[in-house]
Amino acid sequence: MHVIVNAAMSVDGKLSTRHREQVAISGAEDFDRVDALRADSDAVMVGVGTVLADDPSLTVDDRERIDARTERGDPPQPARVIADSRLRTPTDATVYDDAAETILLASDTATDQALTEARTKGATVVTAGEDRVDLSVAFDRLETHGIEQVMVEGGGELVFSLFEAGLVDELSVFVGSIMIGGRDAPTLSDGDGFTDRFPQLRLRDIERIDDGALLRYHVSGR
Amino acid sequence: MHVIVNAAMSVDGKLSTRHREQVAISGAEDFDRVDALRADSDAVMVGVGTVLADDPSLTVDDRERIDARTERGDPPQPARVIADSRLRTPTDATVYDDAAETILLASDTATDQALTEARTKGATVVTAGEDRVDLSVAFDRLETHGIEQVMVEGGGELVFSLFEAGLVDELSVFVGSIMIGGRDAPTLSDGDGFTDRFPQLRLRDIERIDDGALLRYHVSGR
Repeated sequence: MHVIVNAAMSVDGKLSTRHREQVAISGAEDFDRVDALRADSDAVMVGVGTVLADDPSLTVDDRERIDARTERGDPPQPARVIADSRLRTPTDATVYDDAAETILLASDTATDQALTEARTKGATVVTAGEDRVDLSVAFDRLETHGIEQVMVEGGGELVFSLFEAGLVDELSVFVGSIMIGGRDAPTLSDGDGFTDRFPQLRLRDIERIDDGALLRYHVSGR
Repeated sequence: MHVIVNAAMSVDGKLSTRHREQVAISGAEDFDRVDALRADSDAVMVGVGTVLADDPSLTVDDRERIDARTERGDPPQPARVIADSRLRTPTDATVYDDAAETILLASDTATDQALTEARTKGATVVTAGEDRVDLSVAFDRLETHGIEQVMVEGGGELVFSLFEAGLVDELSVFVGSIMIGGRDAPTLSDGDGFTDRFPQLRLRDIERIDDGALLRYHVSGR
């Protein structure tokens, strides 16, 4: 499976304020680039923290891109994948609307009640891992489900876990011309952090868009 | 006074690991750029956290740049300025060597004993502010001391404080092609963080050096 992490961060690496409130980091040109990237992917993925903080739709916006997907035999929208070990996605979350298929990746810690609830809401639940989702196993399952390209939109906990598991192929970071600051504000890659064997990236290209900088990397593993 | 913040961070905005251990983020070309920037400045500044973690020398390395400074009537080395409210700089710190002048910015919380110790070690101590250093007042004092350009090399607590006080004119960030990760790892701008009136930057130029990206900004205030 091909995994692309895409995010917009402030110049100091933050995804939002310490209160997890979203800040306008990028602009129209970057939104359009992200929409195109979604349309090119079989699935768009976030961690449950992002669902709880932002309640995103994770859908393709542009009508022509949606039509192009159906013309080539794909579903109109990419699947929405939520890394959600304990199935904390609220039942009224936007990802439960009928705009696209929704797949929750849970671990053995998810209760039967939560599993039933999620399935009643129409989600597919993939269970892998004891305490936290085993992302490698879960991604293998997604691949048998026909998902060949996943675009990951954060947050920092999921991004760190994916890099830790060596699952990321590409990283695109839009660096906005704004400072958010804060030792407790979420960053592009949180988790425990690396102390050695840091993931090495190869800078593929640099582009100036929306008064910010788009940096695109190949990830060569740890 | 003209204040330039310069730092090297990982792609996720970290200055070091969660253990505050330095990581090779930039390379020879960026080191040389930083050396030139130091040589062009009247003072090189860090926070005491950086002194405690890294024991830096903060001096210009290149012989020709040192000679050029003396030829134009400047001291061979820029002054070293440490933001150190409670005077925690250890007496055996490298900044106390005789390679350059050292100025400690303290607050009223610094004890008489610490003041005497610092002065005995040859440092100039500027006291401003009750609890923490009042950076605006301290910078005014530095200016009367003949310091017109300060280059700030971190860490994240000092960088946040300077932006919060509206004292920064330029920001240069080298984004290394490496991921460090970690919700507790120091970032380019820590402190409490902004929740509104975010400092707005203007991206001046983007340059690819040492397999990384150098982003340079004008700071237009909050």
